[in-house]
Amino acid sequence: MAENGAPRIRLGMVGGGTGAFIGYVHRVAARIDGDYELVAGALSSNAATALESGKNIGLAEDRIYTSYEEMAAKESARKDGIQAVSIVTPNHVHFGPAKAFLEAGIHVICDKPLTSTLDDARALAAIKPKKGAKFLLTHNYTGYPLVRQARELVKSGALGKIRVVQVEYPQDWLTNAADPGNKQASWRTDPKRSGAGGAIGDIGTHAYNLARFITGLKTEAVSAELTSFVKGRKLDDDVQIKLRFQGGAKGMLWASQVAVGSENGLQLRVYGEKAGLEWRQDNPNYMWITEFGKPKQLLTRGGAISAPPAASMNVRIPGGHPEGYLEAFATLYSQFAQVIRGEGKDVAGLLPSLADGVEGMEFIMASVASSKADGKWTKLSEV
Amino acid sequence: MAENGAPRIRLGMVGGGTGAFIGYVHRVAARIDGDYELVAGALSSNAATALESGKNIGLAEDRIYTSYEEMAAKESARKDGIQAVSIVTPNHVHFGPAKAFLEAGIHVICDKPLTSTLDDARALAAIKPKKGAKFLLTHNYTGYPLVRQARELVKSGALGKIRVVQVEYPQDWLTNAADPGNKQASWRTDPKRSGAGGAIGDIGTHAYNLARFITGLKTEAVSAELTSFVKGRKLDDDVQIKLRFQGGAKGMLWASQVAVGSENGLQLRVYGEKAGLEWRQDNPNYMWITEFGKPKQLLTRGGAISAPPAASMNVRIPGGHPEGYLEAFATLYSQFAQVIRGEGKDVAGLLPSLADGVEGMEFIMASVASSKADGKWTKLSEV
Amino acid sequence: MAENGAPRIRLGMVGGGTGAFIGYVHRVAARIDGDYELVAGALSSNAATALESGKNIGLAEDRIYTSYEEMAAKESARKDGIQAVSIVTPNHVHFGPAKAFLEAGIHVICDKPLTSTLDDARALAAIKPKKGAKFLLTHNYTGYPLVRQARELVKSGALGKIRVVQVEYPQDWLTNAADPGNKQASWRTDPKRSGAGGAIGDIGTHAYNLARFITGLKTEAVSAELTSFVKGRKLDDDVQIKLRFQGGAKGMLWASQVAVGSENGLQLRVYGEKAGLEWRQDNPNYMWITEFGKPKQLLTRGGAISAPPAASMNVRIPGGHPEGYLEAFATLYSQFAQVIRGEGKDVAGLLPSLADGVEGMEFIMASVASSKADGKWTKLSEV
Amino acid sequence: MAENGAPRIRLGMVGGGTGAFIGYVHRVAARIDGDYELVAGALSSNAATALESGKNIGLAEDRIYTSYEEMAAKESARKDGIQAVSIVTPNHVHFGPAKAFLEAGIHVICDKPLTSTLDDARALAAIKPKKGAKFLLTHNYTGYPLVRQARELVKSGALGKIRVVQVEYPQDWLTNAADPGNKQASWRTDPKRSGAGGAIGDIGTHAYNLARFITGLKTEAVSAELTSFVKGRKLDDDVQIKLRFQGGAKGMLWASQVAVGSENGLQLRVYGEKAGLEWRQDNPNYMWITEFGKPKQLLTRGGAISAPPAASMNVRIPGGHPEGYLEAFATLYSQFAQVIRGEGKDVAGLLPSLADGVEGMEFIMASVASSKADGKWTKLSEV
Repeated sequence: MAENGAPRIRLGMVGGGTGAFIGYVHRVAARIDGDYELVAGALSSNAATALESGKNIGLAEDRIYTSYEEMAAKESARKDGIQAVSIVTPNHVHFGPAKAFLEAGIHVICDKPLTSTLDDARALAAIKPKKGAKFLLTHNYTGYPLVRQARELVKSGALGKIRVVQVEYPQDWLTNAADPGNKQASWRTDPKRSGAGGAIGDIGTHAYNLARFITGLKTEAVSAELTSFVKGRKLDDDVQIKLRFQGGAKGMLWASQVAVGSENGLQLRVYGEKAGLEWRQDNPNYMWITEFGKPKQLLTRGGAISAPPAASMNVRIPGGHPEGYLEAFATLYSQFAQVIRGEGKDVAGLLPSLADGVEGMEFIMASVASSKADGKWTKLSEV
Repeated sequence: MAENGAPRIRLGMVGGGTGAFIGYVHRVAARIDGDYELVAGALSSNAATALESGKNIGLAEDRIYTSYEEMAAKESARKDGIQAVSIVTPNHVHFGPAKAFLEAGIHVICDKPLTSTLDDARALAAIKPKKGAKFLLTHNYTGYPLVRQARELVKSGALGKIRVVQVEYPQDWLTNAADPGNKQASWRTDPKRSGAGGAIGDIGTHAYNLARFITGLKTEAVSAELTSFVKGRKLDDDVQIKLRFQGGAKGMLWASQVAVGSENGLQLRVYGEKAGLEWRQDNPNYMWITEFGKPKQLLTRGGAISAPPAASMNVRIPGGHPEGYLEAFATLYSQFAQVIRGEGKDVAGLLPSLADGVEGMEFIMASVASSKADGKWTKLSEV
Repeated sequence: MAENGAPRIRLGMVGGGTGAFIGYVHRVAARIDGDYELVAGALSSNAATALESGKNIGLAEDRIYTSYEEMAAKESARKDGIQAVSIVTPNHVHFGPAKAFLEAGIHVICDKPLTSTLDDARALAAIKPKKGAKFLLTHNYTGYPLVRQARELVKSGALGKIRVVQVEYPQDWLTNAADPGNKQASWRTDPKRSGAGGAIGDIGTHAYNLARFITGLKTEAVSAELTSFVKGRKLDDDVQIKLRFQGGAKGMLWASQVAVGSENGLQLRVYGEKAGLEWRQDNPNYMWITEFGKPKQLLTRGGAISAPPAASMNVRIPGGHPEGYLEAFATLYSQFAQVIRGEGKDVAGLLPSLADGVEGMEFIMASVASSKADGKWTKLSEV
Repeated sequence: MAENGAPRIRLGMVGGGTGAFIGYVHRVAARIDGDYELVAGALSSNAATALESGKNIGLAEDRIYTSYEEMAAKESARKDGIQAVSIVTPNHVHFGPAKAFLEAGIHVICDKPLTSTLDDARALAAIKPKKGAKFLLTHNYTGYPLVRQARELVKSGALGKIRVVQVEYPQDWLTNAADPGNKQASWRTDPKRSGAGGAIGDIGTHAYNLARFITGLKTEAVSAELTSFVKGRKLDDDVQIKLRFQGGAKGMLWASQVAVGSENGLQLRVYGEKAGLEWRQDNPNYMWITEFGKPKQLLTRGGAISAPPAASMNVRIPGGHPEGYLEAFATLYSQFAQVIRGEGKDVAGLLPSLADGVEGMEFIMASVASSKADGKWTKLSEV
């Protein structure tokens, strides 16, 4: 049961077979607040792997599927069929299942980026979900309480008009050529499965989405430099982008998978006319805010400052007791459960949507185009 | 289902009614890894509160109890009765339920400190559990992966013979006299419900246990200064203790609930003949280790260093994606589930036990006695 | 006397009247290691101010001048005349005195950027100093021991081939329109005195020089976005630049004077094929280095790692006892004294030169040109 | 010349021959603000070393002495004789020269601890200096601007009544038995030259003095545990002390020279009824202050908060440009110069005095006595 006594939502999963990282994360996220029960899965397109993976996590055999089409058809026909599905496949297998389940009237929770091509993204945004099926894109970093609080601070005018946005997401795990046996690495560096972007799709979109989520600024254009440093790699592993926002704010975005010594160093800094703020994902329970001419203040999740409702509603435990990545991910699941149950009016605007997914794809394609055009300023609407 | 496909263990809860902090934490911890299903509860001794609290979290009405005795009797008689119970009441209501459930053959997960008196602790340690019922004391900080890794480092001899141990746990939430309406504060500052120790029982035992867990050193004696700074407070809110360990190591332990600016600043530093290490709970995904004469190294949970099995088995996600308090707590639940299911041979030695609980009570009583005797060095065995 | 017993070098100063920040810094830097004695000054072009300022710092009246031309003429004619001069005037008054003193055979220590125009810079580089007079440009951040050590690490190949360089210098002191009475702010925001660049000349050149000094990489081209956020400001107060280095490395440079909450946040991060390093000016006694696949290491100035000679020769005190900005500045003075006395063969390559100054001006002008051309990639040699 | 145009004070030095650390530090400190000129020295009791050392730093041969008695006699007889002397010898050679110079009417700047015995300390405090000669004890950490600001904050009542003081000074350089050739280590671990205390005299007194300086609290009694961890070492290398202050505040003091991974980790935390503050010497340009119930604030030296005069008068450069150990040391020299010149009324109360030196010796002796008496609470006045 959920902590509010509501019955659990019956959940299915596409992808996420044994050994897959992000499928596991989605399952934990679904469990933390007690809102979901995983009861069906098409965990792999390989039948034997699908069966073994399903058994490993305790699914009943008749609800272990080897294709998402079959799963969508059979589950939507069951009285106790799944109400929602998590799609945790590589990018090129987002569009098919998302379409299938939405058209079957089943709510969709989909990993990012939305798809592997912009056409797919736009097509997905254009379909008519059956029975009002809802969609959640798991830009999970937006679930951190202090990220929500940062967004509220900007909205409240505490920073004044925004001038400068610095966002970055350095990693180092692709410093060398990926071992062919590394599943995580191999599809992410393969244009057929990942799409036209490498680091930009995998982590650049997270950085971009975070900047957009917190500042609320709309993007005017990008000037990008995408590089593949590792010999033989077909997609970018380092991304340097200048951003122009509507209204005059300027930004820089750096994402890298070859920045030795970086694990998941997502960081955002926003400077307005009146104040600045800084937040890092690897120590997410703290955020700096500085009003011009005053000392820096260290806000803590669940700490001294009573956060606005949009930020505090997903604080689980007191300040100084750290919450992390899984809790932030779980917040998206939990608040999407509220939306599904019709309780979630206040949170709908906070949850990453299909529109955010389309914009993410536009950001990728505009950046790729700009980089090919020697950094020419390129509008997201031009691609 | 658990991630390994095992069916969920049926769990009950004593205490943890609506609004209680630690009961909520135990429920989340029980859910994270999917090993438990909460199906029964005696959430309050007040019948109306018990009923409402039980409904709030979706318990069936016939499994909402108003006394733990009734719950132990009825659940042990059911075919689908609970297999384990979480005890999350104030200290003086640990002994009764722990005894009742162990004697009913139901596994017990109990919050710390073990009891409110040393006699109770010793009595509890002396009973014979029915059907091999097991006991887990939730010294939750021992569940952090880097705490486990620190323990392995010490055991491996990487630090050499330990010389100095500095441990502290400052908070500030009791800086002023507690609001009588604050349930958390009121029982903790009431000798009848908390026992002879205030801060020393609530957080001092955590600090003590952490030092013991990581270093493996046995305690020789304590010299304590316990102070109540807030007017009218009956129990200590600041604890300053010198520690002598067997073999010659020396330690200092500070715990405070009036250290303004501190949230949950549990910190341990250990210095041996060859190396030193430092770890803080409020940023628990990092640990410093320094070999003498070499630069400091920053170890990360799930990071570059392949941790020994005892530490890595509870790493859920990659380095740089923070895990927190709830995950560490969940690790105790999950590994206790392994013990219950007979899978957990490797982890049994890692889980806090009844013996640890008795020693914690001895630590409290020896410290109280030493403080009353003007700081006289007092052995744990003397109380 | 210098610590090595050498007699003090007789020093003059141009600019640096009472209340001037950077003049004071130069005087302290000249004193720290005991290599200089300030004996003459043209501290202001205003006669009364010059006199009062000179008396305030104890100059003899006959060596207080009101023009640098007079000072160059008279001092070079004295038997006990100055051997070196510090030029600490606004940018547009660097060229004149530098030329005058070099041509008078007096060594020149000059604040950066070299001049206010690129023509001046090139003209200065072309003159023939009399009697082998030497020139030092005070890119003071290169004097930090760990900056020197970083340079040695790169040179030694410890990082492998460099791929990515991230450098930034955020400040916030020009967040609002400058008070007309603020001398520091008024000349820096005035194109007539500062030159074509605002933030880019004042702090962007420091960031650029630091990246160049540590990596040794040559610049291919820049793509710049210069912005004036404050209404009415004539020069840039925020600078966002992409850098292409010869050999394929890519960089980003951000300098801002409107980043609220930033004091002097100069920071450099360099990533190579084998290792990465990070250093910040506001806590300059520490540097991170991470070999790929190993834990991060924290190097300390004067600490466990025996630094190569080029880095350790300017460590004054043991690790953990911080040295700061003034000591780094003093290192340039002290090592320039070695050059003057003919002792400094080993250090000459470390000291910022006229050529560095010309390149700094090219960097400014190329960035200004690129920004005007909508971010077009612009070579330093094109301006 | 000093920055205020005053002529330099003629300075001598006792101890500080070539290779000595602290003598060098005193010389730099004397130079930074331009208030002193070193003109004479008895740098070693070995004639050859004294001569070579004197020449190395440029002293005239007739002012290089081999005994402090000779130096006191001859310099006080010269018209241009020294006005002040720095005593930078091992502890057991403080008393003799301090007495000799004070009685010769020469101001004394003396390293800490004051002497090697409490009798000497009291005898020194009892003598009558000739011609009003002044005395400065170089508890150099009191010269840090933020330490001064912390003191002002406490005095102003911003923290409310002080409850808890946590101070520590860990190092690791004596982790192993000292190399007999290490001069720094050998006298510090020799009771004949160091006195009855090892770590407690060398660094414990610094920690104690810092706590006293900032809080202004008077000490009631100490309960100490002094340990020699290294085999064969005659003096303590680890110090654990509980402190009772008059008025009820409680404290803990830890000093160690075997804490592997610590360089000079002097740290002070003070908690009052209304606020708490934290400061560390190894990053001294920052200080945390937290008002109860509000977010932590990070104060910076020279930063946003306008410090009270007692703290800001020794800020040399803007915030974000770090000052360090040498500047703090220089502040004592510079402000003592003001006292000598009769300008320093406002600073006299800030400078460590003979009385502070006597109290430091009482602290050492009381701690040694308490440790021998199994930690018995011991008053400073009892020794």
